[in-house]
Amino acid sequence: MPKAAVLREFGKPLVIEDFPEVHPGPGEVLVKIVAAGVCGSDLHITSGEDPRTPIPMVPGHEGVGIVKELAGPCFDVDGQEINEGDLILWNRGVTCGKCYYCTIAKDPSLCSDRWTYGISRSSEKPRQIRGCYAEELLLTADTQIIKLKEDDNPAVMVAASCSGGTAAHTIELAKIKPGDVVLIQGVGPVGLFLAAFAKAKGASEIIAIKRSPEKEPLAQEFGVTHLLSLAETSREERVKLISDLTSGRGVDVAMEAVGHNSVLDEGLPLVRPGGAYISVGFGVPAPAWPLDTFGLIVRKNVRFQGVWVSDVSHIRQAVLLVRNNPEAFAKMVTHRFPLSEANKALQAVADRSGIKVIIEP
Amino acid sequence: MPKAAVLREFGKPLVIEDFPEVHPGPGEVLVKIVAAGVCGSDLHITSGEDPRTPIPMVPGHEGVGIVKELAGPCFDVDGQEINEGDLILWNRGVTCGKCYYCTIAKDPSLCSDRWTYGISRSSEKPRQIRGCYAEELLLTADTQIIKLKEDDNPAVMVAASCSGGTAAHTIELAKIKPGDVVLIQGVGPVGLFLAAFAKAKGASEIIAIKRSPEKEPLAQEFGVTHLLSLAETSREERVKLISDLTSGRGVDVAMEAVGHNSVLDEGLPLVRPGGAYISVGFGVPAPAWPLDTFGLIVRKNVRFQGVWVSDVSHIRQAVLLVRNNPEAFAKMVTHRFPLSEANKALQAVADRSGIKVIIEP
Amino acid sequence: MPKAAVLREFGKPLVIEDFPEVHPGPGEVLVKIVAAGVCGSDLHITSGEDPRTPIPMVPGHEGVGIVKELAGPCFDVDGQEINEGDLILWNRGVTCGKCYYCTIAKDPSLCSDRWTYGISRSSEKPRQIRGCYAEELLLTADTQIIKLKEDDNPAVMVAASCSGGTAAHTIELAKIKPGDVVLIQGVGPVGLFLAAFAKAKGASEIIAIKRSPEKEPLAQEFGVTHLLSLAETSREERVKLISDLTSGRGVDVAMEAVGHNSVLDEGLPLVRPGGAYISVGFGVPAPAWPLDTFGLIVRKNVRFQGVWVSDVSHIRQAVLLVRNNPEAFAKMVTHRFPLSEANKALQAVADRSGIKVIIEP
Amino acid sequence: MPKAAVLREFGKPLVIEDFPEVHPGPGEVLVKIVAAGVCGSDLHITSGEDPRTPIPMVPGHEGVGIVKELAGPCFDVDGQEINEGDLILWNRGVTCGKCYYCTIAKDPSLCSDRWTYGISRSSEKPRQIRGCYAEELLLTADTQIIKLKEDDNPAVMVAASCSGGTAAHTIELAKIKPGDVVLIQGVGPVGLFLAAFAKAKGASEIIAIKRSPEKEPLAQEFGVTHLLSLAETSREERVKLISDLTSGRGVDVAMEAVGHNSVLDEGLPLVRPGGAYISVGFGVPAPAWPLDTFGLIVRKNVRFQGVWVSDVSHIRQAVLLVRNNPEAFAKMVTHRFPLSEANKALQAVADRSGIKVIIEP
Repeated sequence: MPKAAVLREFGKPLVIEDFPEVHPGPGEVLVKIVAAGVCGSDLHITSGEDPRTPIPMVPGHEGVGIVKELAGPCFDVDGQEINEGDLILWNRGVTCGKCYYCTIAKDPSLCSDRWTYGISRSSEKPRQIRGCYAEELLLTADTQIIKLKEDDNPAVMVAASCSGGTAAHTIELAKIKPGDVVLIQGVGPVGLFLAAFAKAKGASEIIAIKRSPEKEPLAQEFGVTHLLSLAETSREERVKLISDLTSGRGVDVAMEAVGHNSVLDEGLPLVRPGGAYISVGFGVPAPAWPLDTFGLIVRKNVRFQGVWVSDVSHIRQAVLLVRNNPEAFAKMVTHRFPLSEANKALQAVADRSGIKVIIEP
Repeated sequence: MPKAAVLREFGKPLVIEDFPEVHPGPGEVLVKIVAAGVCGSDLHITSGEDPRTPIPMVPGHEGVGIVKELAGPCFDVDGQEINEGDLILWNRGVTCGKCYYCTIAKDPSLCSDRWTYGISRSSEKPRQIRGCYAEELLLTADTQIIKLKEDDNPAVMVAASCSGGTAAHTIELAKIKPGDVVLIQGVGPVGLFLAAFAKAKGASEIIAIKRSPEKEPLAQEFGVTHLLSLAETSREERVKLISDLTSGRGVDVAMEAVGHNSVLDEGLPLVRPGGAYISVGFGVPAPAWPLDTFGLIVRKNVRFQGVWVSDVSHIRQAVLLVRNNPEAFAKMVTHRFPLSEANKALQAVADRSGIKVIIEP
Repeated sequence: MPKAAVLREFGKPLVIEDFPEVHPGPGEVLVKIVAAGVCGSDLHITSGEDPRTPIPMVPGHEGVGIVKELAGPCFDVDGQEINEGDLILWNRGVTCGKCYYCTIAKDPSLCSDRWTYGISRSSEKPRQIRGCYAEELLLTADTQIIKLKEDDNPAVMVAASCSGGTAAHTIELAKIKPGDVVLIQGVGPVGLFLAAFAKAKGASEIIAIKRSPEKEPLAQEFGVTHLLSLAETSREERVKLISDLTSGRGVDVAMEAVGHNSVLDEGLPLVRPGGAYISVGFGVPAPAWPLDTFGLIVRKNVRFQGVWVSDVSHIRQAVLLVRNNPEAFAKMVTHRFPLSEANKALQAVADRSGIKVIIEP
Repeated sequence: MPKAAVLREFGKPLVIEDFPEVHPGPGEVLVKIVAAGVCGSDLHITSGEDPRTPIPMVPGHEGVGIVKELAGPCFDVDGQEINEGDLILWNRGVTCGKCYYCTIAKDPSLCSDRWTYGISRSSEKPRQIRGCYAEELLLTADTQIIKLKEDDNPAVMVAASCSGGTAAHTIELAKIKPGDVVLIQGVGPVGLFLAAFAKAKGASEIIAIKRSPEKEPLAQEFGVTHLLSLAETSREERVKLISDLTSGRGVDVAMEAVGHNSVLDEGLPLVRPGGAYISVGFGVPAPAWPLDTFGLIVRKNVRFQGVWVSDVSHIRQAVLLVRNNPEAFAKMVTHRFPLSEANKALQAVADRSGIKVIIEP
């Protein structure tokens, strides 16, 4: 009987429980989870801040697994056949394929019926594992799958399924051009993915702003050319650096992966006329922010773009990005825990003591 | 000696004065003004609210004229030769062609050295007419010219040079697709141009919101399918109409041409997930607006785009739009005054008693 | 027992046959066909030129029907609930929603498993109606549906499901900007839809070239500003007209809806440097065409774009376009036949005696 | 008196001649040439195959120089002030800033009045150096300048002004997305720049096809993941490799930098449905190529895009690309000659014995 970590009460520790064995029906895929990522949003989920979350449930929306059982032919989004023993990753969000967003807008991130493994499905009625903090997971027939390569490292690749996909979506909307000067606010997993993608889009300078004063040797490996900490530089210094790098204009594109109004205060004025500010860090409601519409948006012809989650095309881009630079992404993985220590894994994220925390069931 | 209306003191009436005769040098074009449009921003200019304005100066940035004198071959932006007697219109903004915005960003609206006839050039040192509230105007060699057709109506066409161009720029950034449902806030000249352009981009429904309760038969001729007045409908009624037209999603694109925070309050929430809100109405600074970044931008994947002025490609689009439907645009012209009554023309705009007010020198 | 026209042998007349009654399973929709369009490609299909076609089969890929029976809740692509008695239209192509083209490229027109009602499904094994030349049609659960309005005219609307959708796809790729000068080669149903869409995208001049010398009063209603017949004008005259309209540059966008090499000969050189030539008319293989790659493509920085079929987003755009101008589209319908005269309907298309021929079962 | 290499007769060796000293007028910049690139097209120019070339003339359209004399303030396209002693590079093409292509299409590569240093200006009437195979060059006031950094290597950077700019333009039109599989035909300077840019746009696989069987260690440094030589692989092997890398679909984008019909034969069929083929290699007329419009363009929804030269925005992108990876680009420079050996430099390119050949006057 497979085990999973269950959230029975918001704000309380997860409990390891046994679940009934299941077998796939047509199109379904039973996977043995080999790596589950702990996402920052898992803290919101387990604390009860995310309105989508029912209880009891099994958290974990980032997962990589090995196919354990299939019921007939099955293909990944690239058209490759999936067989038992294959290493796979999947779109954490399951979309309907029929609504306005799936068919007309071609923007399935916004699918009206989108549901997410590890976030929006209960583990009861029927009693079933629907999250990645578990030994096994049965993927529904409408789950979109990406087949990995044998030598892809599951723990390194798993972040592609959420942070990486969301960063790819952000980059798609950012429309960076070769030679652009880019600002990234925040250097957590999403911020580092943003840096790697910005470099992969040909940005000539990538300035990243971080909160803590500690050295961050990783940022450089992800393409950051100037790493500034809020603790060690003044706002004037940061403004001056960007002015110097851009002949006084401001950055072509700024992206925030923090989610506090203070980053809007600093970031939006740093965008050059005609540039773009992309906000992806706000995962839960925040207080209203006093926007100078004339000065920051209209007079400067600026684009202020929000980004919500990702679809499988973005996740695939993130997988390919990780595969192109596995050494750097491997360094992002700072903590690994067995399933039995899922609560410690959550704590490590809460403490901000690491970058990417992995559960290996 | 040509006459012009001169602003000698902010907030005071214009004074009709004689100016010395001038003759064109190489590349310059001397035009006899046949129609000058009074733009809403002329009120800000004459009152001293626009920081770009020196005094004394001749207002008027919208103009159509007849070529009176040339000094050598001259061509319009389409490559057509310009001759004496031709009816022409020009880009009110003169740009440098050399800066980052002109050459790299290809966004000359943002040119660092852009100056504007009727807004940012004094009429002294040397004493010279540099605005369209005048009998004659000498166009500099770097002014971009659009040759009109003999049967184009100057008074009808003149608004293309500012309101129309700005609307074309807005539409370029709005990225309306055939079948889209579009909301326009404000039905002044810019709003009506926006409606005509939205129709010309294939919008299936164009909802316009206006302040005054009076009937507005013009809106329909410009493509508006649903005209709602703030005075006669409640906000709930407007929300319901848009919900009914869009299966509850909201509009694909909303554009505001008003410039008050109240239109942001109403308009931004009416945009569907994945849609766009375009703000062009803010011509002068306004109080900060409390933005719900999570709820209105990030969670909905919305684009909030500002628009500043226009370049000659936009003005050309506006000219072609007017030419395709001259009957409707002719109705937009509600008042005509001789140059000697320039102050009455300004008053007619201040009174909001008309839509488009023209001075015919 | 519903009747349908069956193609039993390529090149032979269709035979009216009775089919067994069917009832919908979950997600399926049984429709009573009220209008079936005869598409030019139906001639290729019935003659055996289309390699996708099995026999026996029921032709007809353009259809509008009334919902006769449902098995549970069902929604259209806009999220509107579909009920018995509703007038509907559907995507003739059924796509998998899972392959690379459906999920990653977001281009379901290219879906590897796309199949089409009236083209690629046999009427045997099991014996079943799978085309629109029939009294009834059972739509599969994965068919994408567009709910029509009560006052939409089925015979007028039906062409939106193929010619209109394909034209919308063509226009999406054509990227016409307001003010563009557009050339359309061919004024059959696709050509007329292209004209209407080009107008709806803001084209300032729409030149259409047709083969036959007869008057074509319809073209003007669809936005064509200059209609030239190959029989009555010389190539030099056509070149000169376009040169005059474009200051010698050539058209911004040319689109061919004919499918002969002769139209490439004439059309591609008429595109201005930096412009686009869009080819949608080639539905079956044609002899190789000698392309001057340097002179027509590279030196002129030209884009030569092919277009294959359409997806439901395009069909929806066509429905909205028809609804915006039903009077013009109604005139496109020149012939109507009962199902029993399906062979006469095909003959009317073969004779080129009409524009749009409809079967009303 | 500055020396320059003069082409007095097509097909004959260049002759070193003295030219009169010149001094800059307003806006002009006198530069001491420190590196001039020998472009493949210089062979066409000196042999008389390029119809734009007058004689006598000084070849050389790729140049980097040190500012020797100025007549007043001067700024580069980024807004940086240019002073004596600065290292600069410039747009080899001088455009009018006023025509349809410069103002409306915003595509100055196609400017009707574009002329090019080292290609289209005679060195007589007046006798003056107008190419880079020279000790000095007077840049006109309308030449667009890019200021380099002190530590930029002139010989390495000079290719950015033509091959690099043209590659940047190609990439702009190629629209590569992160994760795309890209094919490049040809690994000369343009092909290597294309590879570097494709990598900088996030391509996951870059397949390059080259003619000669020799090892090409450079390709890998520029991002090529699979280098295939025509001499050592069969067409079937190349097709199979691409099929294996793309689940049988074909590449997302193919770009040719060769200019022979044989590359079209091989390359266009290798593009996946919905993909793009970009042709930049055809610099002079070539025989017609038999295009299967249905099979390769329409049925596959493929885009076939030509590319002509570049504008200063592209050249700036190339400069930034070189600066990001100077080690790799330095290896591209295989030969250096003094001005007195300009004919040997041309011969080295004709022999294909090197990649990039530089003249250092």
